[in-house]
Amino acid sequence: MSDRQIAQEVERQWNILRRGVVEIIPEAELKERLTRSLREDRPLKVKLGLDPSAPDIHIGHTVVLHKLRQFQELGHVVQLIIGDFTGRIGDPTGKSETRKQLTEAEIEENARTYKEQLFKILDPEQTEVHFNSKWLAPLTFSDVLELAAKTTVARMLERDDFERRYRANQAISVHEFFYPLMQGYDSVALGCDVELGGTDQKFNLLMGRQLQQEYGQEPQIVMMLPLLEGLDGEKKMSKSLGNYIGIDDEPNDMYGKAMSVPDELMLKYFELATDLPMEELELLEQQLTTGTLHPRDAKMQLAKTFVRMYHGEEAAEGAEQHFKTVFQQNALPEDIPEVVLGKGELENGKLWIVKLLTRLDLVPSNGEARRMVGQGAVKIDGQKVEGAGVDVDVTDGMIVQVGKRKFARVRVEA
Amino acid sequence: MSDRQIAQEVERQWNILRRGVVEIIPEAELKERLTRSLREDRPLKVKLGLDPSAPDIHIGHTVVLHKLRQFQELGHVVQLIIGDFTGRIGDPTGKSETRKQLTEAEIEENARTYKEQLFKILDPEQTEVHFNSKWLAPLTFSDVLELAAKTTVARMLERDDFERRYRANQAISVHEFFYPLMQGYDSVALGCDVELGGTDQKFNLLMGRQLQQEYGQEPQIVMMLPLLEGLDGEKKMSKSLGNYIGIDDEPNDMYGKAMSVPDELMLKYFELATDLPMEELELLEQQLTTGTLHPRDAKMQLAKTFVRMYHGEEAAEGAEQHFKTVFQQNALPEDIPEVVLGKGELENGKLWIVKLLTRLDLVPSNGEARRMVGQGAVKIDGQKVEGAGVDVDVTDGMIVQVGKRKFARVRVEA
Repeated sequence: MSDRQIAQEVERQWNILRRGVVEIIPEAELKERLTRSLREDRPLKVKLGLDPSAPDIHIGHTVVLHKLRQFQELGHVVQLIIGDFTGRIGDPTGKSETRKQLTEAEIEENARTYKEQLFKILDPEQTEVHFNSKWLAPLTFSDVLELAAKTTVARMLERDDFERRYRANQAISVHEFFYPLMQGYDSVALGCDVELGGTDQKFNLLMGRQLQQEYGQEPQIVMMLPLLEGLDGEKKMSKSLGNYIGIDDEPNDMYGKAMSVPDELMLKYFELATDLPMEELELLEQQLTTGTLHPRDAKMQLAKTFVRMYHGEEAAEGAEQHFKTVFQQNALPEDIPEVVLGKGELENGKLWIVKLLTRLDLVPSNGEARRMVGQGAVKIDGQKVEGAGVDVDVTDGMIVQVGKRKFARVRVEA
Repeated sequence: MSDRQIAQEVERQWNILRRGVVEIIPEAELKERLTRSLREDRPLKVKLGLDPSAPDIHIGHTVVLHKLRQFQELGHVVQLIIGDFTGRIGDPTGKSETRKQLTEAEIEENARTYKEQLFKILDPEQTEVHFNSKWLAPLTFSDVLELAAKTTVARMLERDDFERRYRANQAISVHEFFYPLMQGYDSVALGCDVELGGTDQKFNLLMGRQLQQEYGQEPQIVMMLPLLEGLDGEKKMSKSLGNYIGIDDEPNDMYGKAMSVPDELMLKYFELATDLPMEELELLEQQLTTGTLHPRDAKMQLAKTFVRMYHGEEAAEGAEQHFKTVFQQNALPEDIPEVVLGKGELENGKLWIVKLLTRLDLVPSNGEARRMVGQGAVKIDGQKVEGAGVDVDVTDGMIVQVGKRKFARVRVEA
């Protein structure tokens, strides 16, 4: 390629890559690195770090994954790093239930699940999968001290969560300082060109940049993507908050959850989490603004798009059909109150219909519950409940209806 | 031994061991441990950690060494731990000149010098010498994280020097947190019963206690000894401040330095740094209080005791004689002004007599200096200087005299 062609191609890649990105540090270096990549015909190495605990990729994660996919489509290579070293050592304080030590087999299994889920978006041909125990486990005490010497206590305490805990007199174990250091060292070990992450990862991403410099490498460029709010419209989407759409969710469930995305977030979901081309997105926005498209119809398009992306065209049609049958024909009201049920309230995921109705406050008493069921006035997801002896399979998002006007949406605690 | 005999013996040991000690944490445990030691006929393991950089033991260090010697005389074992691991890794930041990486040979040589010096006080038969690289070097990254997990950032920042630096926005590298952790881990590795140190070591000593508990051991007892002020009477005795008496100092030098101990510290020096029995010390104190003993005579006794302890009886007599000849017969005034010379001012430790006299402000000009030397009016340590061409060997503590009334004591920067 001529210099002019290269400059044009860099501009083209830049325009694609910067889309939807919150911050690139530093922007100029990314352009330089892209230029060199083209000149030397060497794809960039683009890193994403993954937690080794049980993976369950949701739409929130896909924001970063779609960006990685774009890198791949432009010819670059993705380096997925599974933080198995951290998982293998567990939490040395033994205090954290959530970070219990994983066995080799569990880590293998998690890695397999990761690949299965991630390759729904990423191209396996342009994806390397690494386990960081490969380079972290062999480090000696001297190596570790050398690593620790690269940064200061004050710098560490600038990290949001450390600072907050330090101020609040909450204990920070000294070993916790190593989590960002390990993540940063991963970039040194693989010589990454770019690392991606959510805006909440800024400290860790910059640590990689700093450590690469300290170890005499060209520092990686850091690319931060927005965090997608969950279905509650407020908090970051996360499994533990239960406000997520999992990419392994069943078609009908996925469709239904997408329909509960708040209107004001719809376009953000389209932009960050779907493969909808930019032009269509702009058209959609215009139609919504002018009122020529009803938000509900736009959201059905979003829901269908998600199902298509993860389950294919046919499943998408099916889910749409199911939704129309169950929900629209029953003319569900716009605002259905949600009731959260604890897992402990269920037995093997089931609950007796009479208990369920009183629990959801749809009836004042067991007697009334039995009467309504007996009259055929109780429906679950549009299906009539036959008999007051039934144990109902309670699923997240399911709609329970009593008579014409009483509704409740069930949320099951994750 | 019967229980009663054991109780008596514990009481006897306790009375010896607590002498001159600032703090024992906790006192009750030491008594218990002594009791068990006698019951099970198992000597206590008493630890002292040593810096691996060039050793030059001075009187200030001997405060702790005498206490160790007492433990030995009561049948216990001393564990000297040379922190060679720290020395071998040097300063990973590369910023500190003083903590440069030591070679194996240098560490060996330093250890040899240590033993040579320490065995002037300690009994080699009851002394183990350990290098902490033996157990620290093989630690894996997982082990290190486990170690780091045993304490918190807040706890570390309670340490005096860390706290001061953190408040003053001075950088603390993360690896520095490992210095107390390593010292503490040494106690775990050797299962120490007691660790000794100066009061400035409290944090590190307690870290050993804490870590032993964390690793499921009985925690060591911590014994803190007073810091001996140097010859300036104010600052802790240290080589770098030049206010020290080295135990390898030549007899005359050692004697002369001891004579410059401030009167008010004399008894403290006797108590903490000599082998004078308690009864003699009490007598001395009484005589000084009642005025039956002149402070200068008491100090000569101190000086002679030091020389005897480190060079033998004969050398002590010789040094006393030398002092009497040179100083007393010349009727030195009580207060001789001191002038500190930088090493950079000397050439191979020498300085031209004319320069020296003007530098010490004993004469107003070079001409006057030549004239006084020519008249035979210049003496160094009582010896007449012959000729204005002489290059003088400048030694620390040397007295330069011009005529009958002008004196200066030279201090050479260490």
